[in-house]
Order: sequence, then structure tokens, then C-alpha cells
Amino acid sequence: MTTAKLNIVPFVSVDRMMKLVNVIGVERFLTELAGYIEEDFRRWDLFDKTPRIASHSHDGVIELMPTSDGRLYGFKYVNGHPKNMRQGLQTVTAFGVLADVGSGYPMLLTEMTILTALRTAATSAVAAKYLAPRGARTMAIIGNGAQSEFQAIAFKALTGVDRLRLYDIDRSASRKCAKNLAGMGFDITICETGQEAVEGAGIITTVTADKQCATILTDNMVGSGVHINAVGGDCPGKTELHRDILLRSDIFVEFPPQTRIEGEIQQLDPDHPVTELWQVIAAKAQGRRDAKQITLFDSVGFAIEDFSALRYVRDQLQATGLYEELDLLADPDEPRDLFGMLLRAAVQPAA
Amino acid sequence: MTTAKLNIVPFVSVDRMMKLVNVIGVERFLTELAGYIEEDFRRWDLFDKTPRIASHSHDGVIELMPTSDGRLYGFKYVNGHPKNMRQGLQTVTAFGVLADVGSGYPMLLTEMTILTALRTAATSAVAAKYLAPRGARTMAIIGNGAQSEFQAIAFKALTGVDRLRLYDIDRSASRKCAKNLAGMGFDITICETGQEAVEGAGIITTVTADKQCATILTDNMVGSGVHINAVGGDCPGKTELHRDILLRSDIFVEFPPQTRIEGEIQQLDPDHPVTELWQVIAAKAQGRRDAKQITLFDSVGFAIEDFSALRYVRDQLQATGLYEELDLLADPDEPRDLFGMLLRAAVQPAA
Repeated sequence: MTTAKLNIVPFVSVDRMMKLVNVIGVERFLTELAGYIEEDFRRWDLFDKTPRIASHSHDGVIELMPTSDGRLYGFKYVNGHPKNMRQGLQTVTAFGVLADVGSGYPMLLTEMTILTALRTAATSAVAAKYLAPRGARTMAIIGNGAQSEFQAIAFKALTGVDRLRLYDIDRSASRKCAKNLAGMGFDITICETGQEAVEGAGIITTVTADKQCATILTDNMVGSGVHINAVGGDCPGKTELHRDILLRSDIFVEFPPQTRIEGEIQQLDPDHPVTELWQVIAAKAQGRRDAKQITLFDSVGFAIEDFSALRYVRDQLQATGLYEELDLLADPDEPRDLFGMLLRAAVQPAA
Repeated sequence: MTTAKLNIVPFVSVDRMMKLVNVIGVERFLTELAGYIEEDFRRWDLFDKTPRIASHSHDGVIELMPTSDGRLYGFKYVNGHPKNMRQGLQTVTAFGVLADVGSGYPMLLTEMTILTALRTAATSAVAAKYLAPRGARTMAIIGNGAQSEFQAIAFKALTGVDRLRLYDIDRSASRKCAKNLAGMGFDITICETGQEAVEGAGIITTVTADKQCATILTDNMVGSGVHINAVGGDCPGKTELHRDILLRSDIFVEFPPQTRIEGEIQQLDPDHPVTELWQVIAAKAQGRRDAKQITLFDSVGFAIEDFSALRYVRDQLQATGLYEELDLLADPDEPRDLFGMLLRAAVQPAA
């Protein structure tokens, strides 16, 4: 390790993240990121796994999501405050850090609001690669908020979805989604109801934002053979699907101890059988078994996906130069002389 | 809330932190910070308390230390890697975040390597205010590394210590410490042994760095009536005091569930009686009882102290202007239009 710039941590701001996604291209970014996620899911056993550490309050939650593969350590700070939208704030904002386990020094600080939407979409599309009915090209998206376009593009890139049926209780959200996706190769229909949206869809994505037990999908809306990508239900008391759908589905999850608290399956008995997605990806468990089966990916978002995203972003820094240098770490000339560094700073000319 | 600059989080770099300490003055900074710590310890019951979340590896540990008082949320990232020093790196580096519980939005990102040394020293001095023998002006400091000067100055500012007896297995560390403290009103003696250092000292501070069970103080070195400020033993397998000293002392701790794992008292039975420091500060428990009693503050560092430090730094930002503006939070014009923001960034001229 060189002794130069030990104080510096590369920082990817929101502006740089947008440039990074645009320089790489959002489809390629999602495809490559999905590759990192699959790679990390295949070596699942290596990771330190703890459920996220949540601090709940009346209006929302602030969470820390750490994990490590023994060489790298990553964590994400993320909040979830549904009321924020009414005040012109994001429901979810996030940032994260990747660090070197050997020295404990941070190697990357990055915005993760955009990156979380990307990794969530990439993970959903990875799950669908293994679970969705073969050749499904039509996807219903119920909930057309901040994550909807990312989901659509990830499914296009990874599974070949090119027909979208959009529904949102606020029609302007659907119009926003359709407008943003214009010219990207989708055939898009804006629907009047959730029921209309799911007609003919082989994949149903639910990605609504309300913090409550809602019933975005009722039992009669879900026919045999579909794949449900349930993204919006991701904390205690927030679900989107009617319990009866869950009972008819084969359920795939990221990390059962977390999903049983936060996911759709919080509605089920604590020992209801589920399959871990990583086992499907690692060929240790079966994904879709037949054409009539309803598969359900009960997505809540797990720390390993953020870890993959942090790794991916870190690997793009050198080639793109899209980062700033943050003076985050005290680096005295002599490690034991932290106070001396402070003293010497006092006599330096002001910067 | 104004809609301007929602993307911005104030950032205090290492450079700005040093300027902040120097502009305020290190003694005043420590005194005011101690006031924030006492204030937060008095309202201890309000806080969310969890032991730190540690990721241990062969060479060290990376920890996240979150807490909240219901209005503000704070966490610190901190590593501890004793081998780092041999590679010219800091044993401990840290940064932290203060956030608004109501919105989940971060309000401050700051370096905390320097700030941790300051808050550790301020907490030790607060404990000594309540526990040290009345009128104790002489302090032995065993271990003269990065934290030693901060401890000395905090004790001077809060308890009136003005005579220091320094000992370190590496004499150059003692010389460094003495040189840094020159002209600050201390009478300083560099000692040949730990035994010599504790002679005549009413307060004994141990603040060594080795990650092992060491015996910095043996039983015969500790006479009646002293206050021991045990700072260096702060993780499983890392202690500084002989067990017999603990058995002769009245022990005061920050948060028992954490200290029993990380502190000197890991050497004792899990039900060995200890007093929580906050109860002494809040006048719910007695501090020093008599002149013969050995009091021991088994410091490991708790999240609430970091929270106090984050609050204090946040309160200095406006008056000093010593921060940068970090573009950390995605802030689309329309909260649901994260993807649209990304699209629009692609057609902007490069910055």
C-alpha cells in the first residue's frame, strides 16, 4: 500500500452516479450488476449474514445493512418514510460504504438511492430468470413510482420482457413511467385497474409504496403459471398480496429470517416452507418446476445485494474516473501522533 | 422545510474537523462536548440502546454503533486493527452520521477518528468528575499513543489534573506525548516503568493499544483511594488490568451488556455487580463513597457518546462554516421520478 493519500476515500455523489449509469448505459449497468449479484448469491455461504438493524419510529424506519465476505465489508444506510413524498422528499434515501476487512479502511462511499433502485431491479430480474414462465414477454407493473422503470428495464435486459401493462392508483404515475420508458423498445399499455393490468401478463410486479397491509393483488386476479415479483412489501406491517395467493404459490426468498419479518410471508406461519433464491441460483434447489405453478419472489432487499452493488461501482471507478476524493480518514505522519497532527494544523495557513 | 438543496448533506472532513477543534480550542471543545455527553447520559432512558454490531476478522474488527433519542439518529462506523500501526495506518479510524428521525434524511456526515479520541477523553473526564478522589491533581497515563494527549487535556479541563506521569513500553511515545503537551500547563514526568508512573497518582489512566489480554496494571501497583480510568481494554480478548484489581474496585460502566463482552469485566462473572455511569450522573446511584475506595471506570465507548459528539459538531456548523456540501441524496423534482432525473442527467452538459 502506498503512503500517499491514505486520508482519501473515493466518493460517488448523486451527480456522479447518474453520469456513471448514463456512461455505462442503464441496460448494461443492470445486466452487469445482475452478474455481480448472481456471483455473490452463488457464494452465499461465505457471507456474514445478519438481519438488518432497524430503528423504527412513528413515521418510518432507519436501517443499517452490513455484510462481509471475509475480504470486503459493506453496509448501507437506508431510510423508509412513506410520508416523505407528501413533503417533496424521497420515501427511501440511501448511501453505502465498502471497506477492506484487512485494514478496516473504507474504500468507497457512494450514494445508494439510485443504486438501490438498480440493485432491487437487478435482483428481481435475476430471480425471474430462474422462476418466470419460459418465454414470458408481458409484465404487469402495479405501482408506477420511483422503482418501476428500473424494474421494467432490468426485466427487458435479463428476461426479454417487452410488453408492459402499467397500473397505479394515481394515473399520473403511470403516465410518468410510460413517458420515461418511451423509445426503449417496450409496448406499453396504461390500465384502469389492477385486474386489467394482470390480463395476459406472465409476470406480475407489485411495487407500491404505502406503509400498510394493502391488497394490491387479490386471489382471483392471479391465474396459474404466472410469476409474481413482489417488491413493495418490505417491512413489518407492509404487505401487498392477499394471503390466499401466498398459499397457492411456491415462495422464493432472499434470507428467511429477514423475510419472515419484513416480507409478504409475515402473513404466514413462521414455518411455512420457502426456498432460498441463492440455492436456486447455485443449482441446489429447483426453480420453476412446471408451467402451471405460481412462483413468487418475496423481495425485501438483502445486504448481500448492496454488497454486490458496492463491488460493481467500485470496479467502475478507475475506468470512468467518476468519483471525488473525500478527506474522510485522519492520517497522521506517525499513527500514534493524532494530537500532533491537530497541533500542526493550527499553525498552517487557512485553506 | 425548504426545497432548496435537499440533496446536500453537510460534511466535516478531517481538515475541517482539525480547524473546528483549533478554532474552538481543544480545552473548550472537550469541556463543551463533556456537557453534551452529561446531558445525554442524564436522559439515558430515552435512547434506543443496542450493543454495537461487530464484524470480527483475523486482523481486527469493523463496527457500526447506532442509537437514537427518538428525534435524532446517529451511528458511527469504526474499525480496530492493531496491526495497522506497523503499516503506517491508524489502528482506529471512524466516521459518523447524524440523521433526522422524522424524515430519515442524514443531516451531518463527519470524520470521527479525531472526534472519537475527543469523545472518549471527554467521557473519561466526566466519569472522573464523579469518581476520582477529591483534589486529585496527579494522573499516571500508561500507554502514550494517539489518545493520550486528549485524555490529559480533558482531565485538566474537567477535573483539574495538572501533573502527568507518563509511561509507555516505547519511550519515544512518551516523549511525543510530553512534547505535544508542552506549554499547556502540565508538570510532566516520563517514567521508566508502570510502577514508577503510578507513584503518587490519584488517577491512573490505562490507554494501550495491543489486541490481547495484557497486564498493564498488576494488583500490587494499585493503592487504596485511586481512580482507574481503563480505556484501552475495549474488545473481547483485549484487557489491561489484572483480575485481582477488578475484585478490589467499585466498577462503573457505560452499558453493561456491551461492557461485559468488551470491557475489563469480561474477566469477571457475568453477574459481578457494576454501577451504570449514567445513574451516577443522574444522581440515581452513588459515585465515590469514601477516600479509600478504588473506583474503576471500565470504558469501552458507547454509541450515546458518539451521538453526543455528532450533536455537538452539528451545533457548531452554522457559526463556524467549517463544513462542505456533499451531494449525497438523490432529489428528483418529483419524488416518484427518480428514473426521469437519471434520464435528464444524460442530456445535460458534462460538469
